[in-house]
Amino acid sequence: MAENRIYNFNPGPAVLPLKVLKEIQKDLLNYKGSGMSIVEISHRSPLFDDIITDAVERTKRLYGLDDRYHVLFVQGGASLQFAMIPMNLLPEGRSGDYVNTGTWSTKAITEARIQNKPHKVVASSEDRDFAYIPKNIQFSKNAVFAHITSNNTIKGTQWADFPDTGGVPIVSDMSSDIFSRPLDTEKFGMIYAGAQKNMGPSGICMVIIRNDMLDLIPEGLPSMLDYNTFMKKNSLYNTPPTFAIYTIQLVLKWIDETIGGLAAMDRHNRKKAKILYDAIDAGDFYRGTADKDSRSLMNVTFRLPSEELETKFIEEAAGKGLGGLKGHRSVGGCRASIYNAMPMEGLEALVDFMQAFEKANS
Amino acid sequence: MAENRIYNFNPGPAVLPLKVLKEIQKDLLNYKGSGMSIVEISHRSPLFDDIITDAVERTKRLYGLDDRYHVLFVQGGASLQFAMIPMNLLPEGRSGDYVNTGTWSTKAITEARIQNKPHKVVASSEDRDFAYIPKNIQFSKNAVFAHITSNNTIKGTQWADFPDTGGVPIVSDMSSDIFSRPLDTEKFGMIYAGAQKNMGPSGICMVIIRNDMLDLIPEGLPSMLDYNTFMKKNSLYNTPPTFAIYTIQLVLKWIDETIGGLAAMDRHNRKKAKILYDAIDAGDFYRGTADKDSRSLMNVTFRLPSEELETKFIEEAAGKGLGGLKGHRSVGGCRASIYNAMPMEGLEALVDFMQAFEKANS
Repeated sequence: MAENRIYNFNPGPAVLPLKVLKEIQKDLLNYKGSGMSIVEISHRSPLFDDIITDAVERTKRLYGLDDRYHVLFVQGGASLQFAMIPMNLLPEGRSGDYVNTGTWSTKAITEARIQNKPHKVVASSEDRDFAYIPKNIQFSKNAVFAHITSNNTIKGTQWADFPDTGGVPIVSDMSSDIFSRPLDTEKFGMIYAGAQKNMGPSGICMVIIRNDMLDLIPEGLPSMLDYNTFMKKNSLYNTPPTFAIYTIQLVLKWIDETIGGLAAMDRHNRKKAKILYDAIDAGDFYRGTADKDSRSLMNVTFRLPSEELETKFIEEAAGKGLGGLKGHRSVGGCRASIYNAMPMEGLEALVDFMQAFEKANS
Repeated sequence: MAENRIYNFNPGPAVLPLKVLKEIQKDLLNYKGSGMSIVEISHRSPLFDDIITDAVERTKRLYGLDDRYHVLFVQGGASLQFAMIPMNLLPEGRSGDYVNTGTWSTKAITEARIQNKPHKVVASSEDRDFAYIPKNIQFSKNAVFAHITSNNTIKGTQWADFPDTGGVPIVSDMSSDIFSRPLDTEKFGMIYAGAQKNMGPSGICMVIIRNDMLDLIPEGLPSMLDYNTFMKKNSLYNTPPTFAIYTIQLVLKWIDETIGGLAAMDRHNRKKAKILYDAIDAGDFYRGTADKDSRSLMNVTFRLPSEELETKFIEEAAGKGLGGLKGHRSVGGCRASIYNAMPMEGLEALVDFMQAFEKANS
């Protein structure tokens, strides 16, 4: 690969499009003839206004969002959102539904509990170590929202379709599959995503929120923990992470103009996932950990016949320029994160290596 | 200036050392032979562990901090700290003192009020539009902390010496003068600073906090709003802003190894400020807005004989590669932000321009 770069299968921070990185590099000392680096320009300058406006407009266009939706940039990652959601969206006397599909869902639920906010776990796949996405869930009629994690980075599962909630707005953590496929956005009251998997550098979280959700927010929240502060000031109440927003804007431009939009992105991602799952399913040496109908197109989790072979596999792969294949420390095994920016060549190289490794070790 | 860069007097995001920007640029596609960009590497990798460890250790060494102090990286800027301070450090029945020296102090006080946390404004310079730092302040004997803003970016004032609080730990917002001079750290229970003025890119806040302050924190705070979460996990409870921490580490290395530490940095900053204040005081054309004994070494605020001349001054200066000289939108006038990374040549060019402008317009 060019510039001695590896194929980076890390779960996040993760691979970014090489085209984007090259543009950042080229402009790093002098952004658009301003005589300043992108990290040195004012967040209140016309130069930055162009960047954040383009990032917001492309997000709205890519997802087909109408004027009821606001695109905000908040710091603190999805983890701060776990706390801000109950703080903002569960006013006195109201309750939220949660579906528990793994580590991140569990953390989201924990933060509602810490604040003593009424909530109900309406479904969970904990009985089989979160290897599947629950079906036929009964959501509460009066819930303010139905919280789900659209893709489970650690467990390798993903909601293929979004559930029928009987009209309750879905609030979804999409940290690991945002912008990976088109969405029927009408179902969603809020979508949020830490940037460091499919959008850009770590340290920024995109929040897409609809007017009816903003109406729920109680008075008297700390300014930086109130979605209305971000909405009213176009995410510029205080200095936002300018470099991160700049990178997101370049990545969205890449999805839009180089890839051709979310339908094309989705086709590309499905092809990539298929050749990897086909390789896993071709024999008994590799074994996928998620139920087939719940498999993630973003994080492919699999095991080998023994932990010794897994260690050897991860090490030998790294030696061949295939990095980051170790499973999350909480579950072990192997994981290939194949986000938007992972090229097909990376998948082909991985599958070739898997076949050679199996031959040599079985 | 090299690479057609300007002298950037913006108040933040602000100028960074060219040496640091060049190092970022050089390594942007492949950090230390990893085959990945710095923005693509895992926050749990040995490569990033080296970065954050070095940033923490250099901070402790530069300020001479002992083991009671913890160096944390928190998102949300100083603005989130305004809320986290009363949330964490004002347990039931305790009160905090605040000194009001301008816009940012006022916001810090507002966030304590929003949370109904007992607090007392023990001094203010609002009577003369915050043009000075209050003296002979009577701090409360039982206050948990004495909150000050060490440098007032908008008003152009700075605490030359820190007040005698009778043993009450100072909590200081140092967003615009952190690492600009040595400190008698023993006086401080907590120091916090958004990075985008003297340390790095926007989107990260350094928090230096002492054990006795951590002891005040009540149980049951949301995880991402509890300093103990950051302390216990070495700022890696969730994915931190890796690019921002990397840049801070490079800037601290530059202060340490290229400049020669904080005493040398302070001498350099004093020289820079002196030639600019001398130029302002040389006649009646320019007029400093802050009292002389309260003048900031970081943000030099001044007026010209008329608003028309100020507009002309700012425009002509920009045409000569002297950018960002406009005063804050809330106060008008002119402001030259001359943080650590502004070289002496920038000051010389500015003073030359000021003299020529005065000659041509008086």
